[in-house]
Amino acid sequence: MTTAHDEDAIRQLIGTLADAVRAKDLDGMARIFAPDIVSYDVEPPLRHVGAEAKAANWARVFAAYTQLDYEVRDLTITVGGDVAFVRSLNRLSGTVAGRQTGTWVRWTGCFRKTDGSWLIAHDHVSVPLDMASGKALLDLEP
Amino acid sequence: MTTAHDEDAIRQLIGTLADAVRAKDLDGMARIFAPDIVSYDVEPPLRHVGAEAKAANWARVFAAYTQLDYEVRDLTITVGGDVAFVRSLNRLSGTVAGRQTGTWVRWTGCFRKTDGSWLIAHDHVSVPLDMASGKALLDLEP
Repeated sequence: MTTAHDEDAIRQLIGTLADAVRAKDLDGMARIFAPDIVSYDVEPPLRHVGAEAKAANWARVFAAYTQLDYEVRDLTITVGGDVAFVRSLNRLSGTVAGRQTGTWVRWTGCFRKTDGSWLIAHDHVSVPLDMASGKALLDLEP
Repeated sequence: MTTAHDEDAIRQLIGTLADAVRAKDLDGMARIFAPDIVSYDVEPPLRHVGAEAKAANWARVFAAYTQLDYEVRDLTITVGGDVAFVRSLNRLSGTVAGRQTGTWVRWTGCFRKTDGSWLIAHDHVSVPLDMASGKALLDLEP
């Protein structure tokens, strides 16, 4: 299998993830996370351990939004053997309590290939902070 | 070169990075970042492009602190060919304006090996946010 083939497989997986977000499809999403994923996610605690914890974070998002869209921009994929990392800016947008909202987050996804299948073994999702005010910056644009 | 050898090399590089932070040694640190690094760093903007931008972020930290310590905890290294990713919880602590301060951040480092040398091609540093208040959470403990 070539690196280009692996890049395609990973790009397709990320498309599946975005589709699953839009469809609020937790089962579809769960197939992309390694069982032992460690996620540094937007909300506390510092780290979320295991695919169930990661799914619970998405379940909270799905409950908050009546309608959801998910855009993945500037995706860069780097593959080496059975390990890969990707980065992109992702915009989660939709309707929360009747109000239209949207936030760009930074996403780093770290993949491992096991038995021919790529899974996310670690990811990191965040917004920057304003050091002076201590506020998270939820309205930055790329 | 074996994977174990690569892991050792990356672990050593991260040790060099921590030493450079403690010594406020920008030159020592600059040798670890790829010239085309893209960093999702603690402060805005969403992404910092290039080793100079990354060094400028550290220069701001060095200017703010009169004394600095840097702890790297729970470091996990995953290597595949010429690509690797690492994650850890890092505590930056020291004295700012006469006051003792310290914050745990989540760190994801993504490495590429070029001409036999590992460099950080992408990294991501953040703290979680409290969605209700919009505040960045600077006092979480692992």
